[in-house]
Amino acid sequence: MSAGAAEQVLTLLRGARQTLGTAESLTGGLVAAALTDEPGASAVLRGGVVSYAVEVKSTLLGVPEELIAEHGAVSRQCAEAMASGALRVLGCDWAVATTGVAGPDPSEGKAVGTVHVAVAGRSGRGEQTMAHRALSLHGSRREIREATAGAALGLLRDTTTRTLSPDGGTVGTYVDPEGPEEKEG
Amino acid sequence: MSAGAAEQVLTLLRGARQTLGTAESLTGGLVAAALTDEPGASAVLRGGVVSYAVEVKSTLLGVPEELIAEHGAVSRQCAEAMASGALRVLGCDWAVATTGVAGPDPSEGKAVGTVHVAVAGRSGRGEQTMAHRALSLHGSRREIREATAGAALGLLRDTTTRTLSPDGGTVGTYVDPEGPEEKEG
Repeated sequence: MSAGAAEQVLTLLRGARQTLGTAESLTGGLVAAALTDEPGASAVLRGGVVSYAVEVKSTLLGVPEELIAEHGAVSRQCAEAMASGALRVLGCDWAVATTGVAGPDPSEGKAVGTVHVAVAGRSGRGEQTMAHRALSLHGSRREIREATAGAALGLLRDTTTRTLSPDGGTVGTYVDPEGPEEKEG
Repeated sequence: MSAGAAEQVLTLLRGARQTLGTAESLTGGLVAAALTDEPGASAVLRGGVVSYAVEVKSTLLGVPEELIAEHGAVSRQCAEAMASGALRVLGCDWAVATTGVAGPDPSEGKAVGTVHVAVAGRSGRGEQTMAHRALSLHGSRREIREATAGAALGLLRDTTTRTLSPDGGTVGTYVDPEGPEEKEG
């Protein structure tokens, strides 16, 4: 499923001559790897950052240390700041970010399977599009990582489709209709 | 096999209290994903950069534009500069880098399957360890990417083992005994 979403995103962005980047914590490269598995990815994907250590989120992606101190690295705020940072440092039009607890142990007092994914994009009018999804996943470390990568690519596909497709809705800020409190098992 | 190498590297570096980073072009996250698939990776892996576009190799990893203009992005020189850059920007003790042509089309006039992997490390005396391996691979895009990830993790395991193990040889610069001209089918 995630491979299908990756292919759809790349086709859409290639047609719109827009570029993409990634910012990954718990998925650790899985999202970028799924995208670069597709032939022709280099026309769209500029690159990505795997910000596994907390400090790397700040040094490479510019996530403010105060944001992490206040909300934690596993938070909606951090996921959105990672996506915004990837837009900036990679110089791309769209970016997708993941942060969460893959396990085996809890982190920051948050349960294994607590995950936040975010998608940031530049709209044509200099505004920034932002979409976010909170997940509560169950399964092994590998299952949680793979489900997160799939959810991130799905959110990226849905957000870019709504923004860029002729019949996909108005251009502008996309608000996740399912809201930030959604839980998935 | 690459999962085995990833686990061995993480165990060795955790024991030595040393850290690791990645700099990936054609593998596009596969090396980082293999490392972060292992429980406890966060004690060792600081993060990584997927520098898919040429410019990202310079902007995020500090590879000199002149080096790429002279030798190309698919070169021993670029692989080594990516590894050195990852050491610096991720603040880690060891870094592994990949660059090459995954296909389906040739790049820079170099054939599909032309690959360079490099490993850089800080030695205890402020010197830098560097190992490199050139590969000439055959197969599908996916096979070339996976074989490259496996070779990169293998070179990383061999280099760190020789440098860090009590019976692994002297600490210092490791020279690949098979030389830079090795070809693998």
